[in-house]
Amino acid sequence: MSKPTLKKIAERLNLSVGTVSKAIKDYPDISDKTKEKVKAVVEELSYKPNKFAQNLRNQESKIIGLIIPQIVHHFFSNIVLGVTEAAEKKGYLVIVLESTESYETEMKHLDLLIERHVDGLLLSLADNTIKYNHITEIIDQGVPIVLYDKISKSFDCHKVVIDDKKAAYNATKYLIDSGCKKIAHVRGPLKPQTTVDRFLGYKDALKDHHISFDKSIVFESEKISFDDGKEIAHRIKKNKNIDGVFAFTDLLASGILIGLVQEGVKIPEEISVMGFSNWRLTKMTSPSLSTVNQCGYEMGQKAFELLYEEIIAKKTNTKLKHKTIEIPTELVIRNSTKKPA
Amino acid sequence: MSKPTLKKIAERLNLSVGTVSKAIKDYPDISDKTKEKVKAVVEELSYKPNKFAQNLRNQESKIIGLIIPQIVHHFFSNIVLGVTEAAEKKGYLVIVLESTESYETEMKHLDLLIERHVDGLLLSLADNTIKYNHITEIIDQGVPIVLYDKISKSFDCHKVVIDDKKAAYNATKYLIDSGCKKIAHVRGPLKPQTTVDRFLGYKDALKDHHISFDKSIVFESEKISFDDGKEIAHRIKKNKNIDGVFAFTDLLASGILIGLVQEGVKIPEEISVMGFSNWRLTKMTSPSLSTVNQCGYEMGQKAFELLYEEIIAKKTNTKLKHKTIEIPTELVIRNSTKKPA
Repeated sequence: MSKPTLKKIAERLNLSVGTVSKAIKDYPDISDKTKEKVKAVVEELSYKPNKFAQNLRNQESKIIGLIIPQIVHHFFSNIVLGVTEAAEKKGYLVIVLESTESYETEMKHLDLLIERHVDGLLLSLADNTIKYNHITEIIDQGVPIVLYDKISKSFDCHKVVIDDKKAAYNATKYLIDSGCKKIAHVRGPLKPQTTVDRFLGYKDALKDHHISFDKSIVFESEKISFDDGKEIAHRIKKNKNIDGVFAFTDLLASGILIGLVQEGVKIPEEISVMGFSNWRLTKMTSPSLSTVNQCGYEMGQKAFELLYEEIIAKKTNTKLKHKTIEIPTELVIRNSTKKPA
Repeated sequence: MSKPTLKKIAERLNLSVGTVSKAIKDYPDISDKTKEKVKAVVEELSYKPNKFAQNLRNQESKIIGLIIPQIVHHFFSNIVLGVTEAAEKKGYLVIVLESTESYETEMKHLDLLIERHVDGLLLSLADNTIKYNHITEIIDQGVPIVLYDKISKSFDCHKVVIDDKKAAYNATKYLIDSGCKKIAHVRGPLKPQTTVDRFLGYKDALKDHHISFDKSIVFESEKISFDDGKEIAHRIKKNKNIDGVFAFTDLLASGILIGLVQEGVKIPEEISVMGFSNWRLTKMTSPSLSTVNQCGYEMGQKAFELLYEEIIAKKTNTKLKHKTIEIPTELVIRNSTKKPA
């Protein structure tokens, strides 16, 4: 059986499509008898009005686009969940696309979404995005857009972030308070603002506690993987003085932790390890990993809510003053760090 | 600046919308001069044709709906990635919705997607789905649908699965071959077919190796969580004879592994632990977890390809013979199990 349409209902009842449509919408110029006949067939065929066509008439698709750097990623999949749930509450559906941290893919995906006339866009910048014309164009065209997590401060649009610098400061400070005197930092390439800010937070905490910054114990991971973490653990172990590690993401931190344990280092007695993000796996390492909790679900919800504001503002021709919302973070202390004195 | 439209281009050039539209499509009855003028304005305003409206005329949305039981889940997020990448290659975008393993939410989400006239649906059944009328209705209406992972054999549509029974059989057999004589099974409620099949595979392997089935060492977890796993570890430890555990999912297996380690059990010398799915975290436990690799990415790709066949068949009024494709699995042996003699 093919999908029931207005036309089929009309043919069946020997009525015009216009009459059937009016009957469904309960127009006063259609008799009750006709309405009843139409209603019976609508029910019999389980006819559903074509919202797709309705939305086109209203010049809206009721669909938004969500571009995330990585889909298979604990933090980002929480973002997807937060966005889709918040969107559904307002009657919006969400198309998900992955930029794979690539500038070219990000551009291509934004184009795809705009071609489909989505009502708005949510974007976290790919690590490789260093030019921003494609985003300025979108803003200039009046397409509602909200940036989340990996943002650039230069755009005039709503943004949702965490205070990466403050969170990294607090994580490093915790290591200092618990007695660490030589704290290594492990980070990715200094492209996304989040990575830069975490590095700055680490440096500020050292400075405020009169520990001199030593760039020879800042390790950079290209691939940001578990195996990279294990390899870095080996280099950390060789430096006899390091007694603490702050890694900018849990995937690296867990590789470092397990690498150190396998090399016979006592965690946290000899070296404390602190991660960032609170991935599910941080509960499962031995010892379990202390980290910074970063709530992706809440960030996703908030990002949609701001986008919705923007969509409504566009509909009503209202000019919005754009804001940057900060999602709070907190330290989650487990067993890879010593207790402060 | 608001979005450029055909109407705006027409007003600007003092032409009719019809003429502009024809000029863009290079109709022969429009002069080259007019075409050039239109082209210049199209470029200046970076006008993009409304694919949304075009698709409506073609009676297709070029959007499919993907319903997954859980978004924040290593296996299912790989499915999302596989589907979105395969879909993009054929010019389709993907709306993602989570059923949260709830029958009601699954029904609601299917309705939402059908209302929007998506071109097809990919569905993995929620654990709580026990009635199937909503799916039969969709198939009867001629909406292309493919079931993946958690399926019901009773529907006449394409399906993508793994052979859960065989995979569980092989996992259990590995434990037997490595010398385990009393193997516990840890599973969730016996609702989804995947859970049932893994249980049956476990039982068959015992039977084929002349080990009698003992239902007192089959443990059921309601919440299927890491913490449930730890609690079950405690009960396993109290039973002095158990020397192997096959858990039906890695989240439980890792909880059991870590729970046993914390209670002082030597893994794998005293008890071997085998998981299922090959989540990223299985590399990170101490010892690392042996498991069954289940490739979500490939399943997602294949599911879209089958859906695409179905969409084309519908367009061309072709009747398809439906098939069930099996994605191969393999054992991933790490350090939580003994080596076979």
